[in-house]
Amino acid sequence: MPESLDPGLYRDLVRRALAEDLGPGDITTDAIVPPDVRARAILLAKSACVVAGLDVAFEVFHQIDAAAIITASKHDGDLCRSGEILAEIIGSAAALLKAERTALNVLQHLSGIATLTRRFVDASDGAVTILDTRKTVPTLRALAKYAVRCGGGTNHRVGLYDGVLIKDNHIQIAGGIAEAVRRVRARTDLTVEVEAQSLVEVVEALGARADVIMLDNLTDDEMREAVMTINGRARIEVSGGMTLGRLRALITLGADCVSVGALTHSAPAADISLDIEVIRT
Amino acid sequence: MPESLDPGLYRDLVRRALAEDLGPGDITTDAIVPPDVRARAILLAKSACVVAGLDVAFEVFHQIDAAAIITASKHDGDLCRSGEILAEIIGSAAALLKAERTALNVLQHLSGIATLTRRFVDASDGAVTILDTRKTVPTLRALAKYAVRCGGGTNHRVGLYDGVLIKDNHIQIAGGIAEAVRRVRARTDLTVEVEAQSLVEVVEALGARADVIMLDNLTDDEMREAVMTINGRARIEVSGGMTLGRLRALITLGADCVSVGALTHSAPAADISLDIEVIRT
Amino acid sequence: MPESLDPGLYRDLVRRALAEDLGPGDITTDAIVPPDVRARAILLAKSACVVAGLDVAFEVFHQIDAAAIITASKHDGDLCRSGEILAEIIGSAAALLKAERTALNVLQHLSGIATLTRRFVDASDGAVTILDTRKTVPTLRALAKYAVRCGGGTNHRVGLYDGVLIKDNHIQIAGGIAEAVRRVRARTDLTVEVEAQSLVEVVEALGARADVIMLDNLTDDEMREAVMTINGRARIEVSGGMTLGRLRALITLGADCVSVGALTHSAPAADISLDIEVIRT
Amino acid sequence: MPESLDPGLYRDLVRRALAEDLGPGDITTDAIVPPDVRARAILLAKSACVVAGLDVAFEVFHQIDAAAIITASKHDGDLCRSGEILAEIIGSAAALLKAERTALNVLQHLSGIATLTRRFVDASDGAVTILDTRKTVPTLRALAKYAVRCGGGTNHRVGLYDGVLIKDNHIQIAGGIAEAVRRVRARTDLTVEVEAQSLVEVVEALGARADVIMLDNLTDDEMREAVMTINGRARIEVSGGMTLGRLRALITLGADCVSVGALTHSAPAADISLDIEVIRT
Amino acid sequence: MPESLDPGLYRDLVRRALAEDLGPGDITTDAIVPPDVRARAILLAKSACVVAGLDVAFEVFHQIDAAAIITASKHDGDLCRSGEILAEIIGSAAALLKAERTALNVLQHLSGIATLTRRFVDASDGAVTILDTRKTVPTLRALAKYAVRCGGGTNHRVGLYDGVLIKDNHIQIAGGIAEAVRRVRARTDLTVEVEAQSLVEVVEALGARADVIMLDNLTDDEMREAVMTINGRARIEVSGGMTLGRLRALITLGADCVSVGALTHSAPAADISLDIEVIRT
Amino acid sequence: MPESLDPGLYRDLVRRALAEDLGPGDITTDAIVPPDVRARAILLAKSACVVAGLDVAFEVFHQIDAAAIITASKHDGDLCRSGEILAEIIGSAAALLKAERTALNVLQHLSGIATLTRRFVDASDGAVTILDTRKTVPTLRALAKYAVRCGGGTNHRVGLYDGVLIKDNHIQIAGGIAEAVRRVRARTDLTVEVEAQSLVEVVEALGARADVIMLDNLTDDEMREAVMTINGRARIEVSGGMTLGRLRALITLGADCVSVGALTHSAPAADISLDIEVIRT
Repeated sequence: MPESLDPGLYRDLVRRALAEDLGPGDITTDAIVPPDVRARAILLAKSACVVAGLDVAFEVFHQIDAAAIITASKHDGDLCRSGEILAEIIGSAAALLKAERTALNVLQHLSGIATLTRRFVDASDGAVTILDTRKTVPTLRALAKYAVRCGGGTNHRVGLYDGVLIKDNHIQIAGGIAEAVRRVRARTDLTVEVEAQSLVEVVEALGARADVIMLDNLTDDEMREAVMTINGRARIEVSGGMTLGRLRALITLGADCVSVGALTHSAPAADISLDIEVIRT
Repeated sequence: MPESLDPGLYRDLVRRALAEDLGPGDITTDAIVPPDVRARAILLAKSACVVAGLDVAFEVFHQIDAAAIITASKHDGDLCRSGEILAEIIGSAAALLKAERTALNVLQHLSGIATLTRRFVDASDGAVTILDTRKTVPTLRALAKYAVRCGGGTNHRVGLYDGVLIKDNHIQIAGGIAEAVRRVRARTDLTVEVEAQSLVEVVEALGARADVIMLDNLTDDEMREAVMTINGRARIEVSGGMTLGRLRALITLGADCVSVGALTHSAPAADISLDIEVIRT
Repeated sequence: MPESLDPGLYRDLVRRALAEDLGPGDITTDAIVPPDVRARAILLAKSACVVAGLDVAFEVFHQIDAAAIITASKHDGDLCRSGEILAEIIGSAAALLKAERTALNVLQHLSGIATLTRRFVDASDGAVTILDTRKTVPTLRALAKYAVRCGGGTNHRVGLYDGVLIKDNHIQIAGGIAEAVRRVRARTDLTVEVEAQSLVEVVEALGARADVIMLDNLTDDEMREAVMTINGRARIEVSGGMTLGRLRALITLGADCVSVGALTHSAPAADISLDIEVIRT
Repeated sequence: MPESLDPGLYRDLVRRALAEDLGPGDITTDAIVPPDVRARAILLAKSACVVAGLDVAFEVFHQIDAAAIITASKHDGDLCRSGEILAEIIGSAAALLKAERTALNVLQHLSGIATLTRRFVDASDGAVTILDTRKTVPTLRALAKYAVRCGGGTNHRVGLYDGVLIKDNHIQIAGGIAEAVRRVRARTDLTVEVEAQSLVEVVEALGARADVIMLDNLTDDEMREAVMTINGRARIEVSGGMTLGRLRALITLGADCVSVGALTHSAPAADISLDIEVIRT
Repeated sequence: MPESLDPGLYRDLVRRALAEDLGPGDITTDAIVPPDVRARAILLAKSACVVAGLDVAFEVFHQIDAAAIITASKHDGDLCRSGEILAEIIGSAAALLKAERTALNVLQHLSGIATLTRRFVDASDGAVTILDTRKTVPTLRALAKYAVRCGGGTNHRVGLYDGVLIKDNHIQIAGGIAEAVRRVRARTDLTVEVEAQSLVEVVEALGARADVIMLDNLTDDEMREAVMTINGRARIEVSGGMTLGRLRALITLGADCVSVGALTHSAPAADISLDIEVIRT
Repeated sequence: MPESLDPGLYRDLVRRALAEDLGPGDITTDAIVPPDVRARAILLAKSACVVAGLDVAFEVFHQIDAAAIITASKHDGDLCRSGEILAEIIGSAAALLKAERTALNVLQHLSGIATLTRRFVDASDGAVTILDTRKTVPTLRALAKYAVRCGGGTNHRVGLYDGVLIKDNHIQIAGGIAEAVRRVRARTDLTVEVEAQSLVEVVEALGARADVIMLDNLTDDEMREAVMTINGRARIEVSGGMTLGRLRALITLGADCVSVGALTHSAPAADISLDIEVIRT
């Protein structure tokens, strides 16, 4: 089911991004291109990718040329082959030239995330849920998490405010997992996840009735043991340095979900270009 | 020579990044950690990297705990081995826990850029200058360009406003390279760079007295020919799909500089962690 | 006469209010409601009220769904009976669901102020002017003052900048009412109001040619005496802990106006709901 | 356990609130009060209240006079009797006069919420949890929710993003409770609450394994029946037009929590004043 | 009596002004000046002027170098001779170089206004009050009006919100001066000024009990007649194309005040420089 | 060739400027003018000027009345005689009255700059290029530089970020012109300008291969000598206290360009008015 992205999430970002690139003006284009020249531009996949962020890219064009006519031929979440056209934009040539880089930067970043996510989702073979993390480029989190969904991934908590994750420092300060969970339950209804770094902590987290237990850096044997101990009484998340290779090994162990920081902090940009052609009149 | 980064370039970014992560509050930490608990945290390189963005990371801590005491043991531009400590931060435990992810996100992104840049600079063997591009994650450009400098790279124009780059569409609209250059010279003193996609265009750009000629997607033979034709009368920049392997092949051809989009759009995050330890009192 | 409210006064407020409620997205609606489902919504008075803030509520809908079709059947300042329809909004079902609470929050707050104001104005029986104060919820003052006007009240100064009010501390620092008035007159043309806490101060304020004298916490006998002393040479405002009961006692005393903090700091929200109905297609 | 409020949540609000009140300047104070006069001010409870928002009020003073010396004698969450001193502020007289109204406006609003919350919590006698709602004055939600906690209440979801609440429109669009819950579970880990307006819907919600069921406008008999049916398999929240009287009747029925919109949309301002006294030198 | 300027009025302006000048960085200074070099700078009057805006200029330095040590030897409103030192700033050499132009731009603009105002005030010889207008450079009004006060001028209304001025279009729409004044009095307590373009309108304005009558473009004879007609029953303001020469002619006619647009829209910048000297260590 | 100005450069400025003038509302117009009255307004040159900033002025009208119909009869850069109409605006009478002053303030400021620039350009007789400086009113630089171009002037660097200018302090800190230039060249490709205050420094700057040499406060004889020495090997800019008279003397000396601070810091406002006429219906 297609999901729409609230424009409120990116309008300001696009405004700041354009200001960053244009500063006091595009001296090349302002000096060379008369305002009445029009052009047609094509967003083109140069290698296979899952596209994400088309509406954000379109907002870039619209903020510079409110009258630009945009026709999308792909939608966010679509898998595109190399050479496929994503969209056509017709508008002022000067506007297209000014918007080009900013539109591509955001589209390539988000499509890069969606594409990498899809590779993990495919590798998971439906056996585990692929979760993202909070390891996103600063100020782009809501978009990055959206891109993960476009790639078929599932969002872990968005920030520190919409999910509880009790880590080692919290446990130490509270004086134990049970007390940490108790303090949190007194404050909020949200799902409570506890990080466990050993089988002993898994047992404590179970005793404290954690909703989710995150197994952090356990060996495969410990993990197998943990899964049997938990036995459905809490959801199990595996975390830490996940690669495609490691994921394939993991999916037989019985975890419910795997969180992958690389989806958002290390995805290479998708290869997408904008081909502009002046319209003869 | 160390270079300081104007705090005006990142204060707002840090504010927005923290707001994005904290939202209406860190429910886990607020529920568990009393405000008077103090902690010591260590920024640690988990694999070799060139560090960049320490001051930005420190700003994250200071915006949450103005009284945090920060001691840096590395500086931006330093090459750190795995296991080396970058800095120590002593402050409120709650503040350290709230700042952790935001500080790491920016530091890992920028250090990732610096580290990849250094690999290209090392591979260039001093034969060509490594330039960045405008292909940066939206709204982080000034920081990304700073990270490139930390890695030993050189900045190409920051935006559309501080450098002239005449591309194919500009040439087409102006009706030729000579006219495009003429229009720009009437408007500005800035260095004029012209993109040339063939030897014919190289000759035209020379005739128009371009300061820099960008060779875009020429074969090695064409490039060798172009270098001889130009013969020092303009600087030569090579652009387009650069990899470390391709760079090594290129440096014998005689170009002055090579621009690499991947430095800023596809650098994987550097592996840096924050180890927090509660201070017993 | 209807008065229009400049959109510049509330556009940013609406943007921030929506951001506050939506954060990175309405997870329930985004997961359940396809983007093409449309709905019709009715703003409904659930008990009698004076409505204020319809345009602000409409802005909430328009910021989420620029194409929403809004038909108002009431206008700001209208007295509505329980069960009356204020407006109909037709648009995307997802947008209506996302906008609902933010639109109601502002409409109920402002209509609550207008409703309470109307009760004071009715009780004043035309004998005194009902003034508001600066005791408004932070950052909503211009809207709160507008709501007071919708209820038939009159605005006192909006802030510290558009009216002079000399209070006891000012008098003490200046060394007397006369000197305080003199200093202010040298600086500005604005109407000068002086707070008097005794008959002696009333006489001093008269001597200093104050335009308005505020009687603060005087007994009814003192107030009667003050009114006779002033005898039309200055306008008289009564202030301090006003209730509907106290107001009825006051109006025989001859004051020109009465200021009521409760209008804006303690008005209960008006009872208005939004009934949403999906449009079958 | 005391909880600290992140300054990032209110710094901008205070800035905007001060700008709203001061505009281009406090003409009375600027004309009368020399910059070197100092004063002492006392925040005073004029009737019994639970205080909330002291740090926000202090921020108001500090933004105008960074050197003001503030000594708090009460803390957020304290129950104060009439006549008790909350804090003392020593600083520039002009600054105190300019900050006074803005500081009081926010402190009175938040303490009003905390005070009303405490009355509901006391009336609940520990039998049910008192929850707030999203019915807050626009742009003040995080502070309003904090004030609810100061009064002993518990926060329901902060916005549309940190909790799932499936309402009648969602159910209708999804085509049933089961399908609505299924769509949400595919997207998020958050606790799922379903609104039930009849016993039939209660049974459906149970079948769909909702974590929380909100009983909306059921009769007492229906509610009793619902509680027995649910029998601990989901948490039960009662919602809709709650008053102190109705609450006392409800607590015997067996609901887990009761949500009260009035806490944040209709709490009268707490009666707190600032007494300023010039320091003779 | 010295007046202090609320920092809230200029902090954001200074931030934006610095961002405008520094953009992504001062390339000259960043490349040449090591961060540990310190310098001493002197703000110097290069020709006679009335200084205004020192605190704003100091804020520029402090935003770049929070530790800069500033010693003022003049204060706003002081008349400075050519060659006199206004202030000394000691701080980081790089910071001084970066702040220089922005600090001077604001100081020269405001001191230019104060200086021109002083010339009009001196020429008025105490016979009329010199008023400013709303003809200020966009977004600098509060500072411009402050500079007028530093020059000895008096502020007319700051904006459309803190004073009533009924002009010809208002009169025409209302259907007469009397009706226009009536409508305004029903809404606000503020002083009411009416623009009169003929003796007939002067009489009407008197009849409507305007507080101030603005004589706009009357001949000297008409003005003399108007002054006699008004005879103290309203204050008289003369407006329109005022020059120093015209002012001297006017002051015998008996107007109370004269408003001068040129004070703020056409004052040449004061000639002030910053001399920077590196501190040898 | 006409040049369009990116709306992103002035939308926020216009928003802030309107907020500054309107504050919480135009009390005169709101009280008198019904919302349905319409009017026609004419922007009129009251004395000869070069117009600049029409689009910015139009944005002011559109932000208040999005439906205003604007017909321009002049374009930026046009020389207008006294009495010529620049544009007609038809819209809500209340909106025109509210927008009037803000629109005029920006249009008069920018047209003042364009007009003064044109006088310098005319006086230069094509012999030298007239450059602006960074001496602009804070936060209006991009617009001021645009106005200079409308007047036929050429922009010097916009800020510290898009051009290198090595001044005496830089030279002193680097230990000489050669070293200063070397440090800058290592960092950037931008044109390098060096300030020379004597013939010795001219020679050093030549030796360091500066692209532009700024002759600062040299006598005419020294300047003639410098021009001969440089002999085309660097561009020559003359700077410092330029007047129209001095310019005419200068143009025989052989400099390439002359920079004039007064263009932007001391241009008197152009005399432009808005004549509003109510539309009878």
